[in-house]
Amino acid sequence: MKISARNVLPGTVISIVRGPVTTEVTLEIAPGVQIVSTITTTSAASLNIVEGGRAYGIIKASSVMVGTD
Amino acid sequence: MKISARNVLPGTVISIVRGPVTTEVTLEIAPGVQIVSTITTTSAASLNIVEGGRAYGIIKASSVMVGTD
Amino acid sequence: MKISARNVLPGTVISIVRGPVTTEVTLEIAPGVQIVSTITTTSAASLNIVEGGRAYGIIKASSVMVGTD
Amino acid sequence: MKISARNVLPGTVISIVRGPVTTEVTLEIAPGVQIVSTITTTSAASLNIVEGGRAYGIIKASSVMVGTD
Amino acid sequence: MKISARNVLPGTVISIVRGPVTTEVTLEIAPGVQIVSTITTTSAASLNIVEGGRAYGIIKASSVMVGTD
Amino acid sequence: MKISARNVLPGTVISIVRGPVTTEVTLEIAPGVQIVSTITTTSAASLNIVEGGRAYGIIKASSVMVGTD
Repeated sequence: MKISARNVLPGTVISIVRGPVTTEVTLEIAPGVQIVSTITTTSAASLNIVEGGRAYGIIKASSVMVGTD
Repeated sequence: MKISARNVLPGTVISIVRGPVTTEVTLEIAPGVQIVSTITTTSAASLNIVEGGRAYGIIKASSVMVGTD
Repeated sequence: MKISARNVLPGTVISIVRGPVTTEVTLEIAPGVQIVSTITTTSAASLNIVEGGRAYGIIKASSVMVGTD
Repeated sequence: MKISARNVLPGTVISIVRGPVTTEVTLEIAPGVQIVSTITTTSAASLNIVEGGRAYGIIKASSVMVGTD
Repeated sequence: MKISARNVLPGTVISIVRGPVTTEVTLEIAPGVQIVSTITTTSAASLNIVEGGRAYGIIKASSVMVGTD
Repeated sequence: MKISARNVLPGTVISIVRGPVTTEVTLEIAPGVQIVSTITTTSAASLNIVEGGRAYGIIKASSVMVGTD
């Protein structure tokens, strides 16, 4: 499936923290660059993500803010 | 200001496409890794972002999905 | 690609309204049930969506609210 | 109250999974078409949603992505 | 309709900026406290919002970040 | 850091409800006007927010809906 989300970032799963409803997944998408995601625990189970495995961080452009110093 | 958003990714502004209400900003956050953001045109003006300048892509963890092959 | 978004709803493209940065896409996902999406105009172009074509509406569970009468 | 969210989808509550902070609610909005929502457990309590009851799934258009095969 | 969004803030419409697809609406929700919203231009039209009129800003709790100095 | 989010609302922390992954934070941003946020429990810890302390509610304009009676 091709998706309209402008940001589809391949990476490696660094950590998975499971809660009863929500699970936090951290990906490394470049050396030293991490992205943290919260998804449902059901999704995490159905995706079969494991620490050390490959995964994508996917983000809709309208969810990305910009900051400057 | 310190912000709860788990993802604050420093990068370089690659392109800016301005519409009447919405502006699209592309950042390079690592060699070959780009992030696209849509913000209001008013925000883009007040941030003084320029192509080639430094900026952050900021994303709340609950806005990040995970995908696998 | 398999995605963590809990809502992947197949449907038919009913209408496409293009703006300079943002495009509005309406899908029919069941008889009489429509879903409206706004994506970047760049995404709409790269997806090659056309009126009458098949497409999915994809929604992260954390973006869905619940209402009652 | 009338709301700007373009997607207000009536349905039936199929399941409710309560966590300490987040609750997952699944609605059937057409035969065989389900929508999953995560809301705060406080909201779920104040809405008095029950399995088998009527409810709406409400989604802002900017939260809907589009995918194609 | 009762809605799960935890934040339903009554206010006065201060300004409306219409684009071809997206419209920006500013509300004053307390003396000197404004909230800016972007909605589809179609929604803005169907809500009949006018400058000086009453309206609510509605925000899902998962869309609110927290910052500290 | 300056941020594109159009809504940066200073207030006082009224309550904090911690779950294993998600924490709910309530701010008072004007007399009698509260905003509820859900952030990751990790973020809540790193921000050192405490009841009675000062904090900002931060919201991207595209996450704000508008309602009318």
